[in-house]
Amino acid sequence: MKKLINDPRAVVDESVEGFGMAHPGLVSVHPDPLYVSRAGGAVPGKVGLVSGGGSGHEPLHAGYVGLGMLDAAVPGAVFTSPTPDAIIPATQAADGGVGVVHIVKNYTGDVLNFETAAEMCAAEGIEVRTVLVNDDVAVEDSLYTAGRRGVAGTVLVEKIAGAAAERGDSLDAVAAIGERVAQNVRSMGLALTACTVPHAGKPSFELADDEIEIGIGIHGEPGRQRVGLEPADALTEHLLGPVADDLGLAGGEQVLLLVNGMGGTPLSELYVVYRRAAQLLADRGVAVVRSLVGNYVTSLEMQGASVTVLRLDDEMTGLWDAPVHTAALRWGV
Amino acid sequence: MKKLINDPRAVVDESVEGFGMAHPGLVSVHPDPLYVSRAGGAVPGKVGLVSGGGSGHEPLHAGYVGLGMLDAAVPGAVFTSPTPDAIIPATQAADGGVGVVHIVKNYTGDVLNFETAAEMCAAEGIEVRTVLVNDDVAVEDSLYTAGRRGVAGTVLVEKIAGAAAERGDSLDAVAAIGERVAQNVRSMGLALTACTVPHAGKPSFELADDEIEIGIGIHGEPGRQRVGLEPADALTEHLLGPVADDLGLAGGEQVLLLVNGMGGTPLSELYVVYRRAAQLLADRGVAVVRSLVGNYVTSLEMQGASVTVLRLDDEMTGLWDAPVHTAALRWGV
Repeated sequence: MKKLINDPRAVVDESVEGFGMAHPGLVSVHPDPLYVSRAGGAVPGKVGLVSGGGSGHEPLHAGYVGLGMLDAAVPGAVFTSPTPDAIIPATQAADGGVGVVHIVKNYTGDVLNFETAAEMCAAEGIEVRTVLVNDDVAVEDSLYTAGRRGVAGTVLVEKIAGAAAERGDSLDAVAAIGERVAQNVRSMGLALTACTVPHAGKPSFELADDEIEIGIGIHGEPGRQRVGLEPADALTEHLLGPVADDLGLAGGEQVLLLVNGMGGTPLSELYVVYRRAAQLLADRGVAVVRSLVGNYVTSLEMQGASVTVLRLDDEMTGLWDAPVHTAALRWGV
Repeated sequence: MKKLINDPRAVVDESVEGFGMAHPGLVSVHPDPLYVSRAGGAVPGKVGLVSGGGSGHEPLHAGYVGLGMLDAAVPGAVFTSPTPDAIIPATQAADGGVGVVHIVKNYTGDVLNFETAAEMCAAEGIEVRTVLVNDDVAVEDSLYTAGRRGVAGTVLVEKIAGAAAERGDSLDAVAAIGERVAQNVRSMGLALTACTVPHAGKPSFELADDEIEIGIGIHGEPGRQRVGLEPADALTEHLLGPVADDLGLAGGEQVLLLVNGMGGTPLSELYVVYRRAAQLLADRGVAVVRSLVGNYVTSLEMQGASVTVLRLDDEMTGLWDAPVHTAALRWGV
C-alpha cells in the first residue's frame, strides 16, 4: 500500500488537522470528538446545516463548510459513519436558534447515527429536520444500504439548501428545498480501479485489467455489471441513460450536469465524459444550463467517474448561483 | 491501459471540446490549430497573457483562462510542446493593443516554440515579453530541460501577473511582476506511481511497489533519489527542506504554501502533506499567510504531490487576493 500518510489509524485526524491549518479563516476543527464548523460559529437567526459521513470522500463534507453551504461537517473514520457523540456537538455548533437541517446520505449507519443525534438534540431543545439523499440509480439495495445509495448529488443538496438558509428561509422551507433537490437529482458511477482503505491495507475489491465496474458505489460496493475496456463515449452512455431515464427527463427541461471524479482520474478524462454526457442530453432535447466538473465526492484514489443530473427550476438555479465560500466550492465572494 | 478516453490520438481535442462545452460563458475553444481564449475576446488596452505547454497537466493551462489570469492558453499534445502555428493565433487573440506576455515553463521545446511565435508576432506588430518559470529545485538539468524545470509555481506566476494586467499595468510592469514571482518561487515533487501517456499505452517509467521517486518531474522525469515507503511526514521533509533552503527563507518572512496533487492522489493525503509542510515552515519562523491545496499542475493519473513555496511581499499578496474567474481558480467574483 503506497499512500502519503503516517499511521493509518491517524490519517483522518491528521488530514482534518491540515485542512484546518490551510483554511484558518474559514473553518474551526474540533478534535475530540472530531467535527468541523464555520470559523465564525453559528449565525444567529439562520437555519444551521450539518452533514457528515465516513471519510475518504473528500472534499465531502468538510470542504463544503462555509458561507452559503454547511455550518458543520462530521467526518467519520474512513468509509465509516460518524457517531452521535460527534454529530451532537456539530449540531449544537451549527444552531443559530432556529433549528438545524441534517443532510444525510442513505447508508444504514449514517441514517441511524444521525437519527439518534437528532433525537438527543431535540431533547435539548434544538429542532432538527433530516433530508435524506439517495440519488444513485445503479442498484436498489446495496452492501450498506436499504434503498438507493446517496452519492454525488449530495453536493447539490448541500449547496442549494445552504443558499436557502443563507437568504433567511425558515427551517421548514430549507428542509423543503433540500428535499426538492434530492427528489430531482440522480447519479450513477463507474470504476476503473479499486481503492485501498488505509487501515485495511489492501484493495476493497478485485477488478481485472480489462474490466470496468458500471454502477459502482462510493465505497467500492458492487454495481450493475462489469464490462470490458469500452471507449469513454460508450461508458458514458451506460451512466447517462439510466440517470436520464429514471429522472424521466423530457425535451425542453433544464438541468445541471455534474461529472464527478472518483479521486484518481485525470481532469482531462472527466471532460471527455462531460462532452459525451452533454451530447446525449442535447440529443434528448435537454438543456444543460449549469455545469460542474471535478473531484467533488471521491473514493480515495479510485479511478472512475460518476454522472449526476439535477432537474432545475428557476428557484433552484438562483440558489445554485448564490455566493458560496467554502474550501472546495467558491464563487461570488 | 485503463482510461476514460476514446481514440488515444483524439484525447486532447475531445477533452478541450468538453472543457469548452462545460464553460461556455468563460472560454472559446478554437479547434485547428487548437487554443483556448476568453469568451469575450481580448480586452482593449489590457496587456494580454498567454501560456501553454504539453497537455496532461490539467487544469494547467486552459483551466486558468479568464478574468484576472490568462487571456489564452495553448494545449499541445500530451507531454508535447504546442507549435508556433497555435501559439501565434493565441497571442493575436490575447492582444488588446498594448502587448502580450508569454508565460513559459522551462522545457526546451516550449522555450523554442514560444520564442519563434514571439518573433513572428513581433514582425506583425505585437510586442511580446516572455517570463520563464523554472521553479523546480530537484535537479539542475533534466530529460527535456537545460536548467531547472518549470512546475507548479507556474500557476502562481499566472495568477499574480494576471491580476497586474487586469488592474491596468503596462507591458513592462506585468512582465516585471511575473519575473518577480518566478524569482521567488520554488517547488519540488515526488511520485508514488508512474503515469501512462495515452498514445504510448504503457507507464512512462518503472517504480517498484516499495519505491518512491523524490524530485520527480511533471512528465515523470527522474528526480534526485528513490526512497522506500517512508511516512508522509518524512517524505514532506524531503521536499520542503530543499525548497526552503534554495529560497533562502529567513525567520519572519511571509509565504504562500501550495501543496499540489499530481492527479491520482486523494485530497485527504494532500492535507496530510500540508500539515507537515506548514509545521516545518513554522519551525523556521516562516509565516504561511496564503494557502492552496489541490490538483493544480498534474501529471495525468500519477500518484504523488509537490510542495511549492512563494516568498510574498505586500504587492504580490494583494495581487493574489484580487478577483479571479477561471474554471479552476475562482474567488471575489
